[in-house]
Amino acid sequence: MNHPTEPKADKSGVRRHNLSLVLRTVHEAGETTRAAVAARVGLTRPAVSSLVEQLLDLGFLVESGKTFSGQAGRPGTVLKPADTGPAGLGVEINVDYVTVCVVDLTGTDRVRRTEHLDNRDADADADADADAAGVLARAARIAAEALEAAAALRLAPAGAGLALPGLVSGGSVRQAPNLGWNEVPAETLFAEALTELRPGTAGLPLTSDNEANMAALAELWFGELGDLRTFLHLTGEIGVGGAIVVHGELLRGAHGFAGEIGHLVVDAEGPRCRCGSRGCLEQYAGQAALLAAAGADDVPDLARRAEAGEPRALAALAEAGRMLGRALSGAVNLLDPEAVVLGGIYPHLLPWLTPALTAELADRAVSGLWTPDAGRLRPASTTTDASRGAAALVLHDVLADPLAYATPIGG
Amino acid sequence: MNHPTEPKADKSGVRRHNLSLVLRTVHEAGETTRAAVAARVGLTRPAVSSLVEQLLDLGFLVESGKTFSGQAGRPGTVLKPADTGPAGLGVEINVDYVTVCVVDLTGTDRVRRTEHLDNRDADADADADADAAGVLARAARIAAEALEAAAALRLAPAGAGLALPGLVSGGSVRQAPNLGWNEVPAETLFAEALTELRPGTAGLPLTSDNEANMAALAELWFGELGDLRTFLHLTGEIGVGGAIVVHGELLRGAHGFAGEIGHLVVDAEGPRCRCGSRGCLEQYAGQAALLAAAGADDVPDLARRAEAGEPRALAALAEAGRMLGRALSGAVNLLDPEAVVLGGIYPHLLPWLTPALTAELADRAVSGLWTPDAGRLRPASTTTDASRGAAALVLHDVLADPLAYATPIGG
Repeated sequence: MNHPTEPKADKSGVRRHNLSLVLRTVHEAGETTRAAVAARVGLTRPAVSSLVEQLLDLGFLVESGKTFSGQAGRPGTVLKPADTGPAGLGVEINVDYVTVCVVDLTGTDRVRRTEHLDNRDADADADADADAAGVLARAARIAAEALEAAAALRLAPAGAGLALPGLVSGGSVRQAPNLGWNEVPAETLFAEALTELRPGTAGLPLTSDNEANMAALAELWFGELGDLRTFLHLTGEIGVGGAIVVHGELLRGAHGFAGEIGHLVVDAEGPRCRCGSRGCLEQYAGQAALLAAAGADDVPDLARRAEAGEPRALAALAEAGRMLGRALSGAVNLLDPEAVVLGGIYPHLLPWLTPALTAELADRAVSGLWTPDAGRLRPASTTTDASRGAAALVLHDVLADPLAYATPIGG
Repeated sequence: MNHPTEPKADKSGVRRHNLSLVLRTVHEAGETTRAAVAARVGLTRPAVSSLVEQLLDLGFLVESGKTFSGQAGRPGTVLKPADTGPAGLGVEINVDYVTVCVVDLTGTDRVRRTEHLDNRDADADADADADAAGVLARAARIAAEALEAAAALRLAPAGAGLALPGLVSGGSVRQAPNLGWNEVPAETLFAEALTELRPGTAGLPLTSDNEANMAALAELWFGELGDLRTFLHLTGEIGVGGAIVVHGELLRGAHGFAGEIGHLVVDAEGPRCRCGSRGCLEQYAGQAALLAAAGADDVPDLARRAEAGEPRALAALAEAGRMLGRALSGAVNLLDPEAVVLGGIYPHLLPWLTPALTAELADRAVSGLWTPDAGRLRPASTTTDASRGAAALVLHDVLADPLAYATPIGG
């Protein structure tokens, strides 16, 4: 029964909101005191103390033995987010690997598993649905192992985020050309496989999004962006993913499919792409295309060859840089971001990609703001990736309404 | 003196807000009654009556003699926005014409003047600043004439909006390649010229933006979009302008320069563009490029030639359509809009542009949502243009805080 005008319901709504406010304040500060929280959120010290007691009881906060005097007055006991209890499970399923991480309320990656696998549909004529179910079952198996390790650290998942390399909406992958997936109910398949391995995860809240969007969220929440809030985020993998962040919010588009910069046409008559078009950016700057053009085995091998001055590797990187610059000039002309953040494989290859990339961007960006020395191009932080973004999305929900997560869901 | 905690200051702020609420409600309804307004905004009838009296006194609303009974009860006198008093002055300066309109509070275009002129910088070596000042002075002269006609209708400008074909920020045109303008203080030059002709306009609030953004606003406010709130708006002129509307709001980017779809590269080795790049969309689908390729004098002539089946005209239109489709596929992949609205010269040419455009878009848009029969491509309304959008921006400010415009500024 819902009586929105009843004072008690209102009061409990206000308390619920204030619990979130206090928890978020401690989370952002890392370490703080009741007095500093009160000063920060504008509530009285007794009110904050009462809220803090409840958060301590529920296991969202812990007290440290030490005391310190903040700017807000007399010394107080130090409060921190708990490093046990509710955690975010992040799962990135990409074309050639699966990464799973468990992130605690302090924002720390506590468990991490990566397995390199070829998740691509081996045979285009084979049963793609069975392939998809198999890939999601493998991801669930890795997640189950990570949750077991997390349980030993007294961490229980409050939810799981799935980062997927394709067009994602309503819990399904609508299309993932590089996996050969169409209309795959990813959340359902993952949840079924995980529940079989760990029955305690039944009913675990799931959320899913494109891996590039998740990587951009990780950059926004855990990266080193400073004041940067309007940017384009590229992740170079087998596919080239893109995410658009405007004033700190993901731009998802009308159906959640925005950001597909990997399929911007850079040469209309270029090679056929798995998406059905021709000459898409990822046919030049995607990992598979780039390694093939360079004759390299993997990204470290490519970097070694470039370092050694091998002409074929340098030519492939210059071509990829030129095509990245061409596609980015289009994106920059359309979106006018403050910066472009390059993640995935690109941070390792920037020395060789950058010259052609910045020259092309300077020539073609109409605003004149993209000169090579403008510093608008930057590598993604080494501590962020899509799995961390997926876990952060769960933590975000916990911070927004801790009471909803007060009874830990088994894992 | 500002005492935000003083009850009186709060109350007058609330009343000011409610005046706006009532005026906007009448504006949206077109015709309504006090009772219907009260039901709509959730204020008591006496409160609404008092607000309405003030808006009547100040000349923002009028009563019509007739009465009608709405769903909200007993018959009431009909209220309408005034068609005299504060009006929006909209000025569009484009490459080959200037349009000025005066729009009253009912949203009706009451005065309109268009002059076809070549505003382009005749000689790239000449003094571009003098050219820019001359163009803005001509626009001010046309605006002064329109204001004189408006004064005869008892309309006084509450502000002026300038729609300009280039990158606009802080009242200046940062860059307008097709005009040869760089760092032109457009608002200041226009205001100086207008004040000289009509001294009463001294101090008139000015706002300025890219003409494509203004055209998209006009489409949003006066067009026939129905529920459509996330779309890409293209205006075909000498340049090809673009505006991005997401959930009913213009996406302006970090510096206000977003939407430059005319400079998306469709052929990297194509003709040199005035922006400095090569193979930009506007080198194929801009008005000048299209007429030159078709050997036509103007858009009506081009349509006649296409109608007559002239091969050169048909080939130019098919090529422009293909390039529009190619650029739009990139924009659609990045932004995932619900629809693309084509304005400017395009609505007149759609029968010949559409086949190649939709084929290219269907092949290259990764979501599969852009099949030729999906109905996501639509012509702009014939009653909207950038000058109307510029005037609407002024009216928007009046509706948001009528008291700020209660003393009409002379015109």
